[in-house]
Amino acid sequence: MSLINRQQLLKHRPEGAVRSEDFDLVEQPVPDLKEGEVLVRVAYLAMDPTLRVWMRDIPQYMPPVAIGEVMRCHGIGRVVQSRSSQFGVGDVVQGMMNWQDYVIFPAGDPDFVRLPPEPGIPLPTLIGACGMSGVTAYYGLTDIAPVSPGETLVVSSAAGSVGAVAGQIGKIRGARVVGIAGGPEKCRYIVEELGFDAAVDYKSENWKESLLKATPDGIHVDFEAVGGEIMHAVMSNMVLGGRVALCGVISTYEGAKPSDDFSVLIIRRLTVHGFLVGDYKKTNEAVDALSGWFREGRLKAQETVAEGLENAPVVLNRLFDGSHRGKLVLQVDPQA
Amino acid sequence: MSLINRQQLLKHRPEGAVRSEDFDLVEQPVPDLKEGEVLVRVAYLAMDPTLRVWMRDIPQYMPPVAIGEVMRCHGIGRVVQSRSSQFGVGDVVQGMMNWQDYVIFPAGDPDFVRLPPEPGIPLPTLIGACGMSGVTAYYGLTDIAPVSPGETLVVSSAAGSVGAVAGQIGKIRGARVVGIAGGPEKCRYIVEELGFDAAVDYKSENWKESLLKATPDGIHVDFEAVGGEIMHAVMSNMVLGGRVALCGVISTYEGAKPSDDFSVLIIRRLTVHGFLVGDYKKTNEAVDALSGWFREGRLKAQETVAEGLENAPVVLNRLFDGSHRGKLVLQVDPQA
Repeated sequence: MSLINRQQLLKHRPEGAVRSEDFDLVEQPVPDLKEGEVLVRVAYLAMDPTLRVWMRDIPQYMPPVAIGEVMRCHGIGRVVQSRSSQFGVGDVVQGMMNWQDYVIFPAGDPDFVRLPPEPGIPLPTLIGACGMSGVTAYYGLTDIAPVSPGETLVVSSAAGSVGAVAGQIGKIRGARVVGIAGGPEKCRYIVEELGFDAAVDYKSENWKESLLKATPDGIHVDFEAVGGEIMHAVMSNMVLGGRVALCGVISTYEGAKPSDDFSVLIIRRLTVHGFLVGDYKKTNEAVDALSGWFREGRLKAQETVAEGLENAPVVLNRLFDGSHRGKLVLQVDPQA
Repeated sequence: MSLINRQQLLKHRPEGAVRSEDFDLVEQPVPDLKEGEVLVRVAYLAMDPTLRVWMRDIPQYMPPVAIGEVMRCHGIGRVVQSRSSQFGVGDVVQGMMNWQDYVIFPAGDPDFVRLPPEPGIPLPTLIGACGMSGVTAYYGLTDIAPVSPGETLVVSSAAGSVGAVAGQIGKIRGARVVGIAGGPEKCRYIVEELGFDAAVDYKSENWKESLLKATPDGIHVDFEAVGGEIMHAVMSNMVLGGRVALCGVISTYEGAKPSDDFSVLIIRRLTVHGFLVGDYKKTNEAVDALSGWFREGRLKAQETVAEGLENAPVVLNRLFDGSHRGKLVLQVDPQA
């Protein structure tokens, strides 16, 4: 019985929220492996904000996904067939799985990496707090804008996959950590469950005043993933010479016109450093640290798990309407 | 016969271009000096873009000038009376002269500095290429975003007071230097007279293509004073990891809504460093280097000299309509 691969192909470039109709869900048989190839059953897909950018035909750090192409997406899965001595059935692999049930890759393709066994760490966590999201937070606060004990760190999107880890790393490094999140439940979560020192609810009326009150000595480091009005409010309350690790500007990803203002960089003498986790080719240091903290209970991981490849387009919108917490993943394999 | 001091007092906060009616020109006798005080006849005022910001009631790096207050302005003059042993008649002093004919200050006020004799350097140059403008360019390219031999440096506002010096310093440091300026005459000037490698006329139709052609290997360092669309075009063509020394965003100073987009910082992995020359308290190193280059003929200085304190408000607009070159100064003392 041959395997069937379903794929989500980009049909239209979405305007605003993504719709199912923006994609074609197609099926085709999985071809036989050639010598040296590996077949992976996709288990979980990482539903990250960058996907929304890849759907748009604008300048970006990778080419946009072409119309008719399978949607690009990072994920994790298990080897189900192998014609390479480098991979065995059951191996856990992470890489560019894309929006589909199965992926075939030639052993040696640097886009696919076999993960060492990590007992006690669930697969979604391996692409979340102990994977790409955590690694982003790790290098942002150790290499891009290192935060020191006693400094004040502000994290935007603090209940999200990267921000939640960034705030916890800030605490591990001895900083005072203030998170910005939407709604009282997320604010409670980051303080009571993740150990942030304070939370600011950007959906509340007086959130800018709350931010000032929560950072009476100014802000030394901003771990920034949002941009726009929230970033501006944070930057305006930074100490002279403050540092910003900028890993995203999600406020513009659905197409909102950017309205950022660089003058605050001069007023506060800020350094803003844009970065991508993909630039860190050797991530062992970060993964080891994150996995260690996770096992010790010092790093808490949370995933919001949605199900079904057929739901991928609408699930992605949960990143932008705030109805997720932690890492948003799509479970593609019901047996995973 | 007592001296009369004329002052330009801010009456209304200007909208867009500054008008004479936005100021009150008032006269009052110069009071007698108290013990320890010094009286300076203002010779030249530095008509810098930052003045336009000081007229606005927005967050900025100094308090806005209050309504009814004399307009704040850096300048240079000579001591005409002194009741301090630290200053003698004829000494050249630079500092916060403001829009007026005379200023009195207590010896020891850090806002006023006596300049050592600099034979062969005219007073306007001492507040221009060999003064604050040059010092801004110097630290921008040595401390904030050091440029190395063989790298490509782009300078916006390249025929202006700071940009013209920045480009020349880039050449002295061995970089390939491309200037962005408005109109063919300024472009000719920066290439033929200042020695830039290429010029891009941002008023020409295909200026973005010209910029790409002039920087075939990408841009390593952007010395930025403009912001907005010009900065975005430069950033979009920077090498991965490029550095931006940001000393101004003149595109917004008259009140235009900022529309900057930080996403390019991630796409190109840029570091943007906002700075102010005022943070460099000891500027001797820079002034010595600049004066030395000026005397050797390696640094060319240009000033656009306007006359008459009564014309100060309208003269300032020349910064924004492009009808000046190099440092815009206002000669207040006809005998200077």
